[in-house]
Amino acid sequence: MKTRIINARILTMEEGSEIFEGEIRIDGSRITYVGAPAETDEVFDSVIDAKRNLVLPGFKNAHTHSAMTFLRSSADDLPLLQWLNEQVFPFEAKLTADDIYSLSKLAILEYVTSGITSVMEMYMQPEAIAQAFDEMGMRVVQVGAANNFSQSTELVEHWYKTLNGKSELTGFRIGFHAEYTCSEDFIERIADIAERNRQPVFTHISEGQPEVDECIGRYGMTPVAFLAKKGVFRYGGAGYHLVHTTPEDIEILKENRIAVVTNSGSNMKLASGIAPIEDYLRAGIPVAIGTDGPASNNCLDIFREMFLTTGMAKLRAGSAAAVPAREVLKMVTCNAAKIMTIPDADVLAPGKLADLVMIDLNQPNMQPINKIDCNLVYSGSKQNVMMTMVHGRILYDQFDGRQNYHFDREPEEIYEVCQKIRDRILG
Amino acid sequence: MKTRIINARILTMEEGSEIFEGEIRIDGSRITYVGAPAETDEVFDSVIDAKRNLVLPGFKNAHTHSAMTFLRSSADDLPLLQWLNEQVFPFEAKLTADDIYSLSKLAILEYVTSGITSVMEMYMQPEAIAQAFDEMGMRVVQVGAANNFSQSTELVEHWYKTLNGKSELTGFRIGFHAEYTCSEDFIERIADIAERNRQPVFTHISEGQPEVDECIGRYGMTPVAFLAKKGVFRYGGAGYHLVHTTPEDIEILKENRIAVVTNSGSNMKLASGIAPIEDYLRAGIPVAIGTDGPASNNCLDIFREMFLTTGMAKLRAGSAAAVPAREVLKMVTCNAAKIMTIPDADVLAPGKLADLVMIDLNQPNMQPINKIDCNLVYSGSKQNVMMTMVHGRILYDQFDGRQNYHFDREPEEIYEVCQKIRDRILG
Repeated sequence: MKTRIINARILTMEEGSEIFEGEIRIDGSRITYVGAPAETDEVFDSVIDAKRNLVLPGFKNAHTHSAMTFLRSSADDLPLLQWLNEQVFPFEAKLTADDIYSLSKLAILEYVTSGITSVMEMYMQPEAIAQAFDEMGMRVVQVGAANNFSQSTELVEHWYKTLNGKSELTGFRIGFHAEYTCSEDFIERIADIAERNRQPVFTHISEGQPEVDECIGRYGMTPVAFLAKKGVFRYGGAGYHLVHTTPEDIEILKENRIAVVTNSGSNMKLASGIAPIEDYLRAGIPVAIGTDGPASNNCLDIFREMFLTTGMAKLRAGSAAAVPAREVLKMVTCNAAKIMTIPDADVLAPGKLADLVMIDLNQPNMQPINKIDCNLVYSGSKQNVMMTMVHGRILYDQFDGRQNYHFDREPEEIYEVCQKIRDRILG
Repeated sequence: MKTRIINARILTMEEGSEIFEGEIRIDGSRITYVGAPAETDEVFDSVIDAKRNLVLPGFKNAHTHSAMTFLRSSADDLPLLQWLNEQVFPFEAKLTADDIYSLSKLAILEYVTSGITSVMEMYMQPEAIAQAFDEMGMRVVQVGAANNFSQSTELVEHWYKTLNGKSELTGFRIGFHAEYTCSEDFIERIADIAERNRQPVFTHISEGQPEVDECIGRYGMTPVAFLAKKGVFRYGGAGYHLVHTTPEDIEILKENRIAVVTNSGSNMKLASGIAPIEDYLRAGIPVAIGTDGPASNNCLDIFREMFLTTGMAKLRAGSAAAVPAREVLKMVTCNAAKIMTIPDADVLAPGKLADLVMIDLNQPNMQPINKIDCNLVYSGSKQNVMMTMVHGRILYDQFDGRQNYHFDREPEEIYEVCQKIRDRILG
């Protein structure tokens, strides 16, 4: 399948790149040309006229729990611990692998509507999840969610060894749930697995202040300091949330090449706090953005996350100049690709993966045309997503003004199955 | 024109109301029936099958500067004063009445896409603005923006006397820009006008801490205390922003029946701070929500504002339980209608204005169906707006999956005119 996208405004997201008008050519899953319009003898299966709309790398959602769709809006406005213990854990215990497969598909429908082309996923039943993403043509990198109560370090290593290389779209990396759900011994075993396989590690870190205080009570140090001391990040990795960190933590993150995945909507809705994003950027720590799961957010909308990430940073700094728009776009494209270990999904360039989005500029919220990159971050919405392409395949478009999903099942079929799951579990 | 909406999930927003399944009948600009499905001999010009989607009162945007669309995303990530003095005031000075007329129309296109059915507007050239809204069939209540440098108290009273009663869709109320742009003498004259006409007054109050500190320096009291002491709010009114207030201020707001219009997105993007919304609600002060103008927000999306209003309150309180979803829905419907002096646009009931929205629940972000009102606030987006009706007329719909605007001019014509205005003024 060869595709040519002509008449596009293009933002490659390469270092220092500016928007220019040109074309993009795709052969199979890879980009073959990005540049000025040019004559070619090549024959294309499909030519898409972008009509001067914007094309840029697809948005990456660097932390989510997709299958939690079944809990969306079932229990909001509750304090964090009450919510987790009464409204999340008891219901999650009732999920089957089949449920997780279907609930993940519902999340994928939502991802493509906001231009998300890949996600970093942490949940249970990773085989079922890999199958759901692979069937829908969506890129996913899963990480282990192991902890004292669910999964095991052996399973994490098993999945690492068996779930990679099965499909070009799905991968699996070493991960565990969090310091506060894992014993010291458990964490040492994770560090051993990472060492043995020379792999980065991914985990929740320092989402709430109580979690940090408890860790200090247990080990006399913060979660960041403790996990680094245990050798978990000998090959780097990333921490999800990292809301409550000290200047010393930030030094440790930098020294250990631990990236930050911020989850602004979830941190806001659960009142976890505002992460020190500006401090991370100043320290040269790479930052990406995740929606977190739909039970805590409650939507899977990268546009809302982009606005919140800069907005919350501005509030924390007391300065409208904090974390400008272009920094946010880096977070959801090139930074995220590196952090999520899919480096070929970072920018638009020959040889890179054809994971990209087209943004409709002919909508009231994008008019008049001023600075397009700022407009995308401060005013963009799902309604501006004209096309979501993953691995060279269009999964979603609004070319004719309608929402067209290109999957083997209609959205309504997936809604119906998920409603039944919700009704069975929540009653 | 008689319209019947059948097969709807209905949320009337009357005190204590729950969602039920039924129908709504409309005759001209008014609702004639809301309730269970029932036989009728009435003949309707139009019957709309809501297909079990949600119908509720239209969203009200209680503070905006519509025509600032021309500055959207032209200068972001700048400190507030630098932004105002270098990037806003010099360009606003170049606007003609014709410009403001067209730029307001661009904003109206955007309002209807997020289900906004009326706005409280503060800008220059109110005759031109009234004409734009009237022509497009959109409801507006304008307020004076008078200050030492623009407009005058005489003009405000003149507009109050001449701009009301011209159209059922447009009104004008007493207002002035802010304490910090008006002399003491000016503010006294505003108070006199309000007294003479027995009218509430609307103005920006305590948006930033420097503004509060300067007022204390000038008069030895906060803006809230000073304006109340001057008798500005003898007939009530509302303050826009009210981010930086003391417990004493909150007492004064309550005693003087001064409502609060919060502008979460703008306060976040300009790093103004987080308003104490929970404190206002606890004191029984009515709260509504405004987008503020598109130069500071940058979009005019009531869904984003709803999420931010509760989210920022949760962050400020350090509690996920702060300002629950239903409170937010009240703010953008019944509370706003009262504050904006259009009391008949508050709820769905016989005799009330037919200003309403239909929300598409068959989208991934609204599935599965759990608590629909929570879903609307925490997960809703413009893409869920299936219909926006003002004064009994459908201004926008997505019944066939496409965005259908029902105005006498195509969006593209409005975009083109506004782009020319932007290019002329910003170069």
